[in-house]
Amino acid sequence: MATVKLWTDEEVSANPRIKAVFDDIRSTRRSDFVNNFWRALANQPALLERTWSSIKEVMVEPGSLDPLTKELIYIAASTINGCSYCVHSHTAAARAKGLSDQQHAEFLAVVGMAAETNALATALQVPIDPEFAVE
Amino acid sequence: MATVKLWTDEEVSANPRIKAVFDDIRSTRRSDFVNNFWRALANQPALLERTWSSIKEVMVEPGSLDPLTKELIYIAASTINGCSYCVHSHTAAARAKGLSDQQHAEFLAVVGMAAETNALATALQVPIDPEFAVE
Amino acid sequence: MATVKLWTDEEVSANPRIKAVFDDIRSTRRSDFVNNFWRALANQPALLERTWSSIKEVMVEPGSLDPLTKELIYIAASTINGCSYCVHSHTAAARAKGLSDQQHAEFLAVVGMAAETNALATALQVPIDPEFAVE
Amino acid sequence: MATVKLWTDEEVSANPRIKAVFDDIRSTRRSDFVNNFWRALANQPALLERTWSSIKEVMVEPGSLDPLTKELIYIAASTINGCSYCVHSHTAAARAKGLSDQQHAEFLAVVGMAAETNALATALQVPIDPEFAVE
Amino acid sequence: MATVKLWTDEEVSANPRIKAVFDDIRSTRRSDFVNNFWRALANQPALLERTWSSIKEVMVEPGSLDPLTKELIYIAASTINGCSYCVHSHTAAARAKGLSDQQHAEFLAVVGMAAETNALATALQVPIDPEFAVE
Amino acid sequence: MATVKLWTDEEVSANPRIKAVFDDIRSTRRSDFVNNFWRALANQPALLERTWSSIKEVMVEPGSLDPLTKELIYIAASTINGCSYCVHSHTAAARAKGLSDQQHAEFLAVVGMAAETNALATALQVPIDPEFAVE
Repeated sequence: MATVKLWTDEEVSANPRIKAVFDDIRSTRRSDFVNNFWRALANQPALLERTWSSIKEVMVEPGSLDPLTKELIYIAASTINGCSYCVHSHTAAARAKGLSDQQHAEFLAVVGMAAETNALATALQVPIDPEFAVE
Repeated sequence: MATVKLWTDEEVSANPRIKAVFDDIRSTRRSDFVNNFWRALANQPALLERTWSSIKEVMVEPGSLDPLTKELIYIAASTINGCSYCVHSHTAAARAKGLSDQQHAEFLAVVGMAAETNALATALQVPIDPEFAVE
Repeated sequence: MATVKLWTDEEVSANPRIKAVFDDIRSTRRSDFVNNFWRALANQPALLERTWSSIKEVMVEPGSLDPLTKELIYIAASTINGCSYCVHSHTAAARAKGLSDQQHAEFLAVVGMAAETNALATALQVPIDPEFAVE
Repeated sequence: MATVKLWTDEEVSANPRIKAVFDDIRSTRRSDFVNNFWRALANQPALLERTWSSIKEVMVEPGSLDPLTKELIYIAASTINGCSYCVHSHTAAARAKGLSDQQHAEFLAVVGMAAETNALATALQVPIDPEFAVE
Repeated sequence: MATVKLWTDEEVSANPRIKAVFDDIRSTRRSDFVNNFWRALANQPALLERTWSSIKEVMVEPGSLDPLTKELIYIAASTINGCSYCVHSHTAAARAKGLSDQQHAEFLAVVGMAAETNALATALQVPIDPEFAVE
Repeated sequence: MATVKLWTDEEVSANPRIKAVFDDIRSTRRSDFVNNFWRALANQPALLERTWSSIKEVMVEPGSLDPLTKELIYIAASTINGCSYCVHSHTAAARAKGLSDQQHAEFLAVVGMAAETNALATALQVPIDPEFAVE
């Protein structure tokens, strides 16, 4: 259960400010499905608008990283943050963007190794090599 | 400062088991530089061998994700885990594998958005949409 | 499901040491409702007593921070720790202490920005400005 | 040391896009001091602009939570995320906004109790009480 | 729900590579029960093999730490990482290895105190005493 | 650098409330050395008293877990929380209580495996087996 109300399509339609964001989500993603994250954020119109605008700029607009790579970075962060919702939504998004089973397997191996060596480096308190400095 | 001794090249040379791993790190990476992480792990030979063997399998051997994508996943996990050493070493590794400033900027934007929406999804306790289920 | 048994009111009544804590929770909060956290801790009487005593001192006794501010600090920590139970219980507690929808929206915006900039500062490994030193 | 270059005032002055943000930071805060976080973000102009714009909207513009409460929420999140830089910069900011030693002591007590009970609730896997549901 | 398919015993039997790992799990643990973690990992044969091989080496083979101590270290890490699945599976494993209610109570007290003092040390940014250096 | 002043022995001696705690730390540990954590907490007398009293009850008083096991649980939690100070202070404490190099190596292997499988279980969102239920 959520800590806030989840907005239904009917409630969204009755509120022009929220409806404008949902309309843009639907047309940007070319899909009628709007997931619960946005239905929860609808309780905070300013936060909803700012978050969607940032997500659109960061995740949707073309850049020098391809869309699937961005999703894998997102899932890695969500995994370490222990966010079940985000792991589910972005793994589904990655699959929709073409993630193969083999790529998923390699992603999992990298995230697992990162988590293991993060713990080892922290437990050993390894000092940073001067060679890593940016010129 | 570390919680264990960091092995010098001289000490490594005097221990055949450790030397074998360091030799393999050097030849695999085609570089004489061995960073402090391995010099700290040298205190635990079995762990050193297993960790290097896994890193080599996961990060070095060719697969369906390119080496730079793997580094970005690694840095994302290390950032959220707050591992300073790992952020430094893998950002340096990503640069060595061709990470451009523009790609770094986009990576940072994705990691930042992920961390923000992770916190929002958790604070809102958004229920997982049934649409995300794997068939 | 819990990793320990949850104590029912009947079981609590049969154990004077546990009952004393539950009675104090009920009279301090002026409510008959005792949430599952305490029913789980009842398996560890010494920990139950110490935890309730600390919570009472920290969260209930009057001080220089008002009760609602304390709850918001609590929810922020619980969100970043990814503790679903704690997010739910302290969001409910904050509402009972007068949290408005507008305040909740602003709280979420702050927690989200903090999480985002925490990730950025860590990924950038920003050095601490000497200006932040305590005289 | 940082994973990117820190921009000096001279370098900032030579770049109109970065200079515009730094000028706004200085005039908004009524102080000539611009901390290292922004000097690191200056390498990513779009991210710098979006982050400052959000921080200004969330932390500076008046709302229903007072500025000091927002800083305490920020420090709580930064503490749990283990972000040294952020703990330093926002503790300094909170002091500048009037945080007293007594308030700091109470803040620390709340953050400590939250972290402790977060760990207990997670280790016990306490099920969420239906009483916490939002109507 | 999982982000991948969970393999049934029938599906495992039809795949010799997966079956070999499941057979070894069953014979090593002297139990027919194979928990969901391995049924999810079965989608990634190389990762399944490497993970089971490491777990067996680290958790099953005799060493200088007794099996129950290893489980408590595992649960502590899992608790702080907020991994519900891992807290459940390793608390069950610890009980199977003889964890008493009194030991569980003391474990919880230690994990709680650690989480509290971790937060305090981070919020206070306590400098590391030179006395902690390794000779 | 710390976010608060660190109390010197002279300042402690001039304040009877703080001095009483420091005297008890010294006599309990049979050592004149008082580490920086307590010198930072000295700014918050009530928190100092409550924290020391809890640490003494949890970590010093005899129970069913031996002192070294408690330290290993503490370091595991501190590692995952990324608390450098705590990793250093409790690794030093564990060594003082007899931690051998072999035990440290096994501890590191367990913490590393836990962190890796925590990440895998979270990324896979493995459902909890009903077999783990407490009767």
